[in-house]
Amino acid sequence: MTILLNSDRTLPINLFEYEKQATQHLSQMAFDYYSSGAGDEATLRDNQAAFARYKVRPRMLVDVSERDLTTSVLGYPLQLPLLIAPMAFQCLAHSDGEVATAKAAAAAGVGMVLSTLSTKSIEEVAAVSHQFQNTLQWFQLYIHKDRGLTRVMVERAYAAGYKALCVTVDAPILGRRERDKRNEFALPPGIQLANLALSGLNIPQEHQESGLLVYFAEQLDSSITWRDLEWLQSLSPLPLVLKGILRGDDATRAVECGAKAIVVSNHGGRQLDSAIASLDALSEIVEAVDSRLEVLLDGGIRRGIDILKAKALGARAVLLGRPILWGLAVDGEAGVAHVISLLKDEFDVAIALSGCAKLRDIDSSLIFKK
Amino acid sequence: MTILLNSDRTLPINLFEYEKQATQHLSQMAFDYYSSGAGDEATLRDNQAAFARYKVRPRMLVDVSERDLTTSVLGYPLQLPLLIAPMAFQCLAHSDGEVATAKAAAAAGVGMVLSTLSTKSIEEVAAVSHQFQNTLQWFQLYIHKDRGLTRVMVERAYAAGYKALCVTVDAPILGRRERDKRNEFALPPGIQLANLALSGLNIPQEHQESGLLVYFAEQLDSSITWRDLEWLQSLSPLPLVLKGILRGDDATRAVECGAKAIVVSNHGGRQLDSAIASLDALSEIVEAVDSRLEVLLDGGIRRGIDILKAKALGARAVLLGRPILWGLAVDGEAGVAHVISLLKDEFDVAIALSGCAKLRDIDSSLIFKK
Amino acid sequence: MTILLNSDRTLPINLFEYEKQATQHLSQMAFDYYSSGAGDEATLRDNQAAFARYKVRPRMLVDVSERDLTTSVLGYPLQLPLLIAPMAFQCLAHSDGEVATAKAAAAAGVGMVLSTLSTKSIEEVAAVSHQFQNTLQWFQLYIHKDRGLTRVMVERAYAAGYKALCVTVDAPILGRRERDKRNEFALPPGIQLANLALSGLNIPQEHQESGLLVYFAEQLDSSITWRDLEWLQSLSPLPLVLKGILRGDDATRAVECGAKAIVVSNHGGRQLDSAIASLDALSEIVEAVDSRLEVLLDGGIRRGIDILKAKALGARAVLLGRPILWGLAVDGEAGVAHVISLLKDEFDVAIALSGCAKLRDIDSSLIFKK
Amino acid sequence: MTILLNSDRTLPINLFEYEKQATQHLSQMAFDYYSSGAGDEATLRDNQAAFARYKVRPRMLVDVSERDLTTSVLGYPLQLPLLIAPMAFQCLAHSDGEVATAKAAAAAGVGMVLSTLSTKSIEEVAAVSHQFQNTLQWFQLYIHKDRGLTRVMVERAYAAGYKALCVTVDAPILGRRERDKRNEFALPPGIQLANLALSGLNIPQEHQESGLLVYFAEQLDSSITWRDLEWLQSLSPLPLVLKGILRGDDATRAVECGAKAIVVSNHGGRQLDSAIASLDALSEIVEAVDSRLEVLLDGGIRRGIDILKAKALGARAVLLGRPILWGLAVDGEAGVAHVISLLKDEFDVAIALSGCAKLRDIDSSLIFKK
Repeated sequence: MTILLNSDRTLPINLFEYEKQATQHLSQMAFDYYSSGAGDEATLRDNQAAFARYKVRPRMLVDVSERDLTTSVLGYPLQLPLLIAPMAFQCLAHSDGEVATAKAAAAAGVGMVLSTLSTKSIEEVAAVSHQFQNTLQWFQLYIHKDRGLTRVMVERAYAAGYKALCVTVDAPILGRRERDKRNEFALPPGIQLANLALSGLNIPQEHQESGLLVYFAEQLDSSITWRDLEWLQSLSPLPLVLKGILRGDDATRAVECGAKAIVVSNHGGRQLDSAIASLDALSEIVEAVDSRLEVLLDGGIRRGIDILKAKALGARAVLLGRPILWGLAVDGEAGVAHVISLLKDEFDVAIALSGCAKLRDIDSSLIFKK
Repeated sequence: MTILLNSDRTLPINLFEYEKQATQHLSQMAFDYYSSGAGDEATLRDNQAAFARYKVRPRMLVDVSERDLTTSVLGYPLQLPLLIAPMAFQCLAHSDGEVATAKAAAAAGVGMVLSTLSTKSIEEVAAVSHQFQNTLQWFQLYIHKDRGLTRVMVERAYAAGYKALCVTVDAPILGRRERDKRNEFALPPGIQLANLALSGLNIPQEHQESGLLVYFAEQLDSSITWRDLEWLQSLSPLPLVLKGILRGDDATRAVECGAKAIVVSNHGGRQLDSAIASLDALSEIVEAVDSRLEVLLDGGIRRGIDILKAKALGARAVLLGRPILWGLAVDGEAGVAHVISLLKDEFDVAIALSGCAKLRDIDSSLIFKK
Repeated sequence: MTILLNSDRTLPINLFEYEKQATQHLSQMAFDYYSSGAGDEATLRDNQAAFARYKVRPRMLVDVSERDLTTSVLGYPLQLPLLIAPMAFQCLAHSDGEVATAKAAAAAGVGMVLSTLSTKSIEEVAAVSHQFQNTLQWFQLYIHKDRGLTRVMVERAYAAGYKALCVTVDAPILGRRERDKRNEFALPPGIQLANLALSGLNIPQEHQESGLLVYFAEQLDSSITWRDLEWLQSLSPLPLVLKGILRGDDATRAVECGAKAIVVSNHGGRQLDSAIASLDALSEIVEAVDSRLEVLLDGGIRRGIDILKAKALGARAVLLGRPILWGLAVDGEAGVAHVISLLKDEFDVAIALSGCAKLRDIDSSLIFKK
Repeated sequence: MTILLNSDRTLPINLFEYEKQATQHLSQMAFDYYSSGAGDEATLRDNQAAFARYKVRPRMLVDVSERDLTTSVLGYPLQLPLLIAPMAFQCLAHSDGEVATAKAAAAAGVGMVLSTLSTKSIEEVAAVSHQFQNTLQWFQLYIHKDRGLTRVMVERAYAAGYKALCVTVDAPILGRRERDKRNEFALPPGIQLANLALSGLNIPQEHQESGLLVYFAEQLDSSITWRDLEWLQSLSPLPLVLKGILRGDDATRAVECGAKAIVVSNHGGRQLDSAIASLDALSEIVEAVDSRLEVLLDGGIRRGIDILKAKALGARAVLLGRPILWGLAVDGEAGVAHVISLLKDEFDVAIALSGCAKLRDIDSSLIFKK
């Protein structure tokens, strides 16, 4: 893959450096929106801190001269056990928005989950995938009170070729992100909800409040329960992925309701501050699920070795969020591509040095927890 | 509820910001008196740190579109499982003192515990409650060596309509608060012990010592034991609430002595420095009590999620202390009202995002302790 | 007790403030000698940190109006379960040296252990005790290679009326205290080893080395074993106290060898850096000893509550070291008296607020260890 | 041993001070290469932090007047249970490079492991040992893809008198050391791979990449497995030592494959960042091995007491890395000698104060793990 980069910058060599550079490419409001968490941001910090609490016991003298990083998620092949997490408003980071992200993802052979609140439309992003083979695109769904609107979005996603509906279950209302409140977060002129603007919906400008929080309160359905999944399933043949599960009993319920995958997630620390770190929640959930559906994880991934830790504890793949936006902000598609590439290289080194030649070699004995 | 605010300030969006603003409205002596703890202030810090050690395992896909935050304490309804902790000398924060606090509490439908050492009288504060329905006011009692004086205060409290006697059991002598000692803490002119001044009692001005410490040594009875509760109970039909219990065996004793509630508390870290954090003490006590009386908790509550954690570990309600004073200092009744309102909103979000529609849904499985 | 203080200083209100003031009264070499520990000073720090790891579960509604802080150690009464630890060269802190310390100790009714390396003689210090009743003075013994010299010191101590021999067992060679090495620690002119100068012994001035370290290497006997205790016991009827025990098996051995008491100690972090904090070692030792001898503890005591923690874990009394020197440096006998007085007041508050009226009420249930 | 030192410097008194001084004697590129670790350097830090987590329970009243620090490793006597770890490119630190290190090691009676990537040749370094008796030199082997080249190096090492082959097993590819990448690490003019230059191999200069990383990728064999050890053993009668084992099962495999020793090591935190601290891995490995081969350890040793801790947990000896380079940089052979001497003196004090007169007295009961 050729990575094109704008010329006047020092090429970051890890994801943290992308974050630093991104601050130069984003408005304060956009950077705050992307980087912040709810409340005191304790869960935001703990997601990363959790990875540091798990150490690795590498195996030696394994032939790692040929490494195979490929896997599949819900039957679709990936070059890397990685999907791009659903993130709203990507045109805040770069004018190409979700289309740039989708191109980089498809080119790299990683999955992408498009947010309901995207600033490029379901169809625009799907069009990217037609240029590639075997592209894994999922559509993330927020269930609006207007069920007709919700139904239309599902139908559009199915028609456009998305491979699964990724239903966010941890946001019946929006978490209180204080930086957004102070910034009176709203979308700047020219950026709109590409999937919803036709229905007249937009993020309102609010006094001393986050417009997104008000949008959620007004538009989204906070009454959704496990029973509504049946209705959701009836709208299309798309498999359901539940994003935001943090308990074993909820995971078991997901199995029983026919979900095909879950994402262990606390929404990047943006919803319930004080929620358990996603990595800390993983083992219990993997055990409860007992291979009856696929378990993914997001929250705190910053290094290749983090992917290995999540896999060793039972995740099939991970979702990467904020660092993708830093890449997008810094250099559009090329920036996203480079972020993926850096993480892939790190993961490649991580499995080699852990004595794994392929993903199947990663097992729980690799983990040492102090 | 309409919140009236003075115009020349930035409206705080959380309780920490109230603390910051309060420093501009208080004398150093008053701020130190309110904010400090005993000794090295280890317990003061640990009260808050304890909350951070308990993480939450939220439930998903629960219908939380209608949330009910109401509860009752000793049979009296509350809009929120919250009482205002007894705190002395509130006229140091604002000229309306305890009356302002009581109005805000009553308007918000939360309880209030009036301190023996209040700067507005038992009757003045009780008068507030007559303007509202179902107001929960308790009277906090320090037992003076002068038993006649004590008896009179109990009788006044009963006559004025207080619903319980909240007996502070962790202060046979006063804890050593070094900032008060350095400041030679005393009440400034014009502020007096509203319930005791008629008896000629006041906080003395002392050389290189806290006047309050001397007051305790001279006036309060440090010989009180479980047996004295019988005498106390004989003074009025008011139920007894014991504030300051930190051990399961003491809680059991409280049950046996006929107390109707206890407050798990270390007096906000102001008495025995090194005492266990109140949240750390809660589970053992809840287990010992086995529902035979109501268990409340104070110490370290700063966020709505903290209330949820206390309830998940078995508390029926919590008491909030210092942040109320910050609100009072910043804007009198409106400030207190806003502090309560902020915390209520946060608690509302916390239960919604934890998958609880009403308080009964909060159970111990929500807690993850590292 | 009247405390006389020189007039041009702010009276410290706790032991930490004495340390701060002491830096103004001591040469860098003396302050470093007193305050430093061996190596990286990890054990020095851990001694205090250990106290912070143990929290207290206070009892309520106990009659604490009359508190009794008295105890006895080896049958001798103390007003407080406190002895002053043996510390060398006290004339470095104040010209009255160990005599001032002894006066303050005797006046306060606490014990004092005189160091072999004192700068006032065995007899000078013993003379202080004749002015008081029931004074508890012990003589700390370093066993010199010159056994005759050692015998003479024991005989002098016995003759002078010391009540026990406190044999330091953790210093067969001196720990490496890097600040002393850098300072080329030696005694300034006019200060000498009061018990040894007649024998021609002094702390040598060394190039890039601590003179004390060289003194130990040249003069002290590093071959002492349990068997030598028999010889030591034969020199006088004084009971033996072994200072520096950190293991249960060694404590059992001490019982078997006829020692009457032990001091759980790591020499204030000055000998083996990385040694277990003395408080962490206490419980195992108390259990091993099973009341067959008296267990004391030193290391890290800075607050009255620390004494309570040590007692709750089984210590009969504690030894206080450095803070005594800070008091001595700041104001001689009056400073030492004030340090003791501050700690006594804090301990008095600590037991009252823990629900203990006398020392016997302190039990292990008061401790909560996270 | 006479230690000659250049005159214009303050003599360091511990290994940390050598590190500080070394920064004045090294280029940024060289200092970074030596001091850095992989990734976030979490394992680098954790290696040292691990030692701080293990406390010591010293024994008292043991005759330590005569201490014996000697031991043997694979049958060869050492004055101290210490070997110098294999480290590449020592001419970056001092023009005498590995020869200076070897001289200091031999003079002090400690072992030395020569790196494949040395800047003095196998034969030059071996020549040093002929001036001493019983010198323990091992040759560290990186297995190149060119098996002929590898065979020749083994034969040269055997012929030159090295006593073992220390096969590095944790570096099938090089860890990602970001400082080297930023510095575009390469060897400066005049410094070359003394054992490999004749074969035309050198560390290449790379754009925005570490030349060493590229060297590894191009030249070293990442397919080596346990089976290749048989081939390796066939090349010479030298015993095999496997360096980089971190798991009990791998250690058992090493026994089965006929290795005579292993080094518990994470390559000084330079390979897999997040790998378990070597000290944390030790106990499991010692138990698995059950004395069937000798277990050494490196990573994090900075103080004499660290050697004692490693031995108490079952290591026969330890390897010391970076501090040797700091000594070499500061003052060549004399600097290395002084570093060894400082550590020896500290170890001597450590065993004395732990109640051990000889290494055999060090047992696991000395360790207290919080």
